[in-house]
Parts: sequence; C-alpha cells; structure tokens
Amino acid sequence: MLAKYDLPELIRRVILAAAAALLVAPLALAQTDPLPSWNDTAPKAAIVAFVEKVTKEGSPEFIPEHERIAVFDNDGTLWTEHPMYTQLAFALDRVKALAPDHPEWKDTQPFKAVLEGDMKTLAASGEKGLLELIMTTHAGMTSDDFQKVVTDWLATARDPKFKRPYTELVYQPMIELLAYLRANDFKTFIVSGGGIEFVRPWAEKVYGIPPEQVVGSSIKTEFRMRDDTPTLYRLPQVNFIDDKAGKPVGINEHIGRRPIAAFGNSDGDLEMLQWTTMGGAPARFGMLVHHTDAEREYAYDRESEFGRLDKALDAAAITGWTVVDMKADWKQIFREK
Amino acid sequence: MLAKYDLPELIRRVILAAAAALLVAPLALAQTDPLPSWNDTAPKAAIVAFVEKVTKEGSPEFIPEHERIAVFDNDGTLWTEHPMYTQLAFALDRVKALAPDHPEWKDTQPFKAVLEGDMKTLAASGEKGLLELIMTTHAGMTSDDFQKVVTDWLATARDPKFKRPYTELVYQPMIELLAYLRANDFKTFIVSGGGIEFVRPWAEKVYGIPPEQVVGSSIKTEFRMRDDTPTLYRLPQVNFIDDKAGKPVGINEHIGRRPIAAFGNSDGDLEMLQWTTMGGAPARFGMLVHHTDAEREYAYDRESEFGRLDKALDAAAITGWTVVDMKADWKQIFREK
Repeated sequence: MLAKYDLPELIRRVILAAAAALLVAPLALAQTDPLPSWNDTAPKAAIVAFVEKVTKEGSPEFIPEHERIAVFDNDGTLWTEHPMYTQLAFALDRVKALAPDHPEWKDTQPFKAVLEGDMKTLAASGEKGLLELIMTTHAGMTSDDFQKVVTDWLATARDPKFKRPYTELVYQPMIELLAYLRANDFKTFIVSGGGIEFVRPWAEKVYGIPPEQVVGSSIKTEFRMRDDTPTLYRLPQVNFIDDKAGKPVGINEHIGRRPIAAFGNSDGDLEMLQWTTMGGAPARFGMLVHHTDAEREYAYDRESEFGRLDKALDAAAITGWTVVDMKADWKQIFREK
Repeated sequence: MLAKYDLPELIRRVILAAAAALLVAPLALAQTDPLPSWNDTAPKAAIVAFVEKVTKEGSPEFIPEHERIAVFDNDGTLWTEHPMYTQLAFALDRVKALAPDHPEWKDTQPFKAVLEGDMKTLAASGEKGLLELIMTTHAGMTSDDFQKVVTDWLATARDPKFKRPYTELVYQPMIELLAYLRANDFKTFIVSGGGIEFVRPWAEKVYGIPPEQVVGSSIKTEFRMRDDTPTLYRLPQVNFIDDKAGKPVGINEHIGRRPIAAFGNSDGDLEMLQWTTMGGAPARFGMLVHHTDAEREYAYDRESEFGRLDKALDAAAITGWTVVDMKADWKQIFREK
C-alpha cells in the first residue's frame, strides 16, 4: 500500500504512532485501579472480571459497545435511603412550605400529621395518604417550575443524621463504578422507583447521568399553551410506577433493549435483575448492595420499611448475583465533599 | 507552566500538535459539503447557519453539547408515509398471515374488509376498527417475538408504488442531516406517532438512531416469568399516543429536556415544534418537510388523509420555521440502494 519512497507518508505514520503511544500511556496508568474505594474482595473482582470479558474483542463473551447498557436503582443503591426516602423528606418539607396558603391543612389528614411531625399517624394514613401527599406537593405546576423547586430544596436541605446535603450522601464506590463502566463504553442509566422528575435535575451533576438516561415513576403531564408560551403542566394523576415488575417495563419503554448489567439493593429491584440476567446474552451481571454498616451508614435487610432486601437476597444465592457487604467490601461509603 | 528547558515535554507538544493537524485536515475536507443532496436554497442555508451558530464557542448563541437535542418525526419526515402509513400496511399483512388461524375473521369486521381488500369498508370502521386491527396484530406476544415479526416483515415487504423495501424509502437529504447534526455533537431522537416497538428494530441500522433514542406510541406490556425465563408480554391496551399534544409529553418523559431543533411534516408535529422553538433558549430551529413532488414521491398537504399539513403550515409562516419544498430543495429524494 505504501510507495517505497513516500517519505511524507512515512513521517506522518511515525508521528501518529508516537502521538498514540504518548496518549495511551497515561490512560493505561490511570486504569490500574479504577475502583479505589472498593476493598480487594470478591465483588470488586467480579465486577472487573465481567467488564474485562465483555470488552475483550474476539472473546466469545464480547459484547459490542452499543449493547453495553447498565441500569442502576437509585435509593439505597446510589445514595442513602434511610431514615426515609429523600423524596418523602422533600414532600414533607413542601407541605410545611405550602401550609401558609392552606390553613385547612391544620385539620385535614394526612397534612395535619405532617405539620405536627406525627410520623405514626402519617404512616397510618397508608398508601392513600402518601399518594395524596405526593400529588399535592408534586403536581399543580409546570415541569420547569417543579425542577426549580427540587433544585432549590436540595441546595438547602440536610440529612438529619449526617447533617450533609443529600447529594453528598451518594456512595463513592458506586460513583467509581459508574465512571469505570462508562470508561469501558457502557451507557449508564438510573432506573428508580422514585420520581423521574425528582432525580433528573441533579443526576447529571452528581452521577454523570443525563436526563435522557433516567427512568423513574411519573405523574401525568399535559401540554398547555399559556399565552404564546408552551408549557407542560403536572397533573395529580399517576402515570407509571417504576418499581418491582414495573422496572423491566420501564426499561423496555425507555431503553428498548435488555441491559447486560443491573445494580440494586432491595426487593423492588428483583424483577429488574431477573430481566437483565436470566436468559439472553451469555455474559450478564447482577449485583445487590447489602446495607451492613450500622456505624458508617445503616444496617438493614429483611425487616426494613424502606429498601427491604428479602426475596432478592434469596434469589441472589440461586442466580449467582454478586452481593456487596458494605461494611466488608467498601473502604469508603460517601463521596468526598 | 512549562519549564524553560523541558525538552522532552516540548517535543511531545510538537508531536501532538503535528498529529492533531494531520488528523483534522481530512475531516475538514470531508465537511465542505455535509448536505450534498440538498440544493443550495434557503433551507440548507438555514440549517447550516443554525448549526454553526450554536456550535461556535464563545458565541452568544452557543449551546453546550449535552443540550444539543434534535427530534425527528418519522412518517413523512424521514420516510414515505403514502399511500398509507407503513405500520398500517404491516397490520394488514399480519391479518392476512394470521387469517388461517382465525376462520371467524371471514365474517367479522374489520377483518373481513382487510381480507377482501375493501379499503372503503375498513376506513368506515373508523378509529374503533383500526384500534382493533392494531391490538390484534401488535399484542398477544412478547416484545422479543414482536421485534422478530417486524424484522421479518420488513425483509420481504415491498412498497406498492416504488417496488422497494420500505427501509429504502427513507429520504437521503434527511439521512445526511442526521449525520451532519451528529457530527456536530447533537443527539438525534425519533419522536414518532407510530409504534415505538415498530420503529426500534430497524432505526439503528437505517438512521443510526439507537432504540433508547426512539420515542413513540405504545401499548401496555407486562412482566411475566415463563418457567425461569422473564418475558415482557404485550397487552391489547393503549399505553401512550405520541402524537400532536402527546409529542411534547413523550419528549419530556423520555428525554427530560427541551430539544433545540425539531423536524416534522404534518399537523401531528405542530406541538412538538412549538415546544421546541417557542420560549426557552435563544437559538432554536423548527423545520417542516412539505411534500411537493408528485413525480419523484407525492404531493399533498392541507387535504391529505395521512400526514395532513395545514395548521402547522400556517404556524410556520408566523413562527419562522423553515419549510422544505421537496421538489425545489432536494436533489435526490430516496437514499441510494
């Protein structure tokens, strides 16, 4: 192909090769430990082994880049979900913020319970009460306005135990895992039981996951022209619940292909892990984060009110999903400030 | 920053700069005409001007890469929609293929009309009849099975006028436009009134648009474990209609941010173009493909049964959306075989 005396071409090739060597060397160095907050225990080894085999060209388990879809639950998998889901803390604070315009709430449940800090009565209001709380605080405004409300709240709200902003209570080992997968040409998605519009405003900054790669529960919205300005108005009606058997449905609707790796922490993620790992391509990966560290975070599983891990833990033993013991497997829990 | 006598570093920089120059030169050449199938008329100039201003760093209208979302209608915008939507042709063929297992269809409308090729009676069955047709042919199987049925059908079906596979009747100028936008770091999405699972199986190969960047109408699906194999089963119930005022809703649900460019061809795209261009960022682009070429394709607008362009054409005159006159503005209609 190369003429014998084509000197300029030869020089070009030498320069390109030299540049390539210079560019690749630092990358290779940086990749010696892509998961520094993980102890050298079984889960880290399993993650690395999986990534290496699906990215190795020519390997029987090689998976092309565009099929490297990885899905992550959010509450309890990427950030803390105790003592209550952050979105619930948001809803309670919203009730307090909106209360001056709603004097009737002083005598109306479940708002009365919220205003009096009576969690027992609130819990007794059950799913119906919670739904009313969510609809009142999440609907009745445009999507743009809701995004602003969420962003403003997260800027000032603090977790009651750690006294830190919620967006700092994300797990450093999982942040590293997200980055490691993306460096290996995975596309990373959140698949949350929480509200899609509650997660989107901050997921890009905190996790590096853009809005179009967030799947979640949603309420209905309606297109409305307001004078000459188009808006999307949030209606107090459930559109989709992205939890349990809803997660594979949400994944199919949004992503349209089966993930090759799924990461969760509770029974709400069982079907997502089944859908990802059982049947289909040869190499699949399922992982559960098991909250075992009462000192650095929380310890809970089979009896927990939030993020119960019971059936999925039994399933992991049968299916071979990797179970992370947070206390033993993670050097560090939360990300650096 | 650079030590005065750091020769190795100086050499490294020179080599990198040389390599960069060598790498960039051929790209710049290739970009001299990114839209060769477009005549040098106003629409091409408007597209190029828009792309150049939003990608020019430091410009007041610069838009960062992650916000460069472009949305495309499919039927009539990216491929031919006459003499009927391709998905309807698919449904009619499916009825014929399934008929041997349904002897009762010989005497039941709207199936009888389909089997007898009686389009007039079929049309008279109205929305109810069409919905029944869609549910019968699109539901009652898993998502994986449906994908296979669509793929198999497209491999053999031929358009009645052009005698070519439907996936060859995509518009060459639009294929170039998609590629041009992606080369400028836009993320391109389909936002179709058609079925999301009807478009996904071939959109990546034909348009370079992956399944996760397809938004469309859908029926409900249900997660089911069949022995130890998880499946998604398609139910005969409408989930979402991604048309007219549904398009901004679908965009928000799937993408979660407002596009900066929208491309359509009918009144079904009116709200999508409004949502994209009215209010929000300084630089937005809206375009309508106007079917004006009865010789090379079809000519239709205000009175058409499929892809009616009436209100949106009036709106274009007021809002400044670009209107493509297919006959005058496109050198070539369909892509090369």
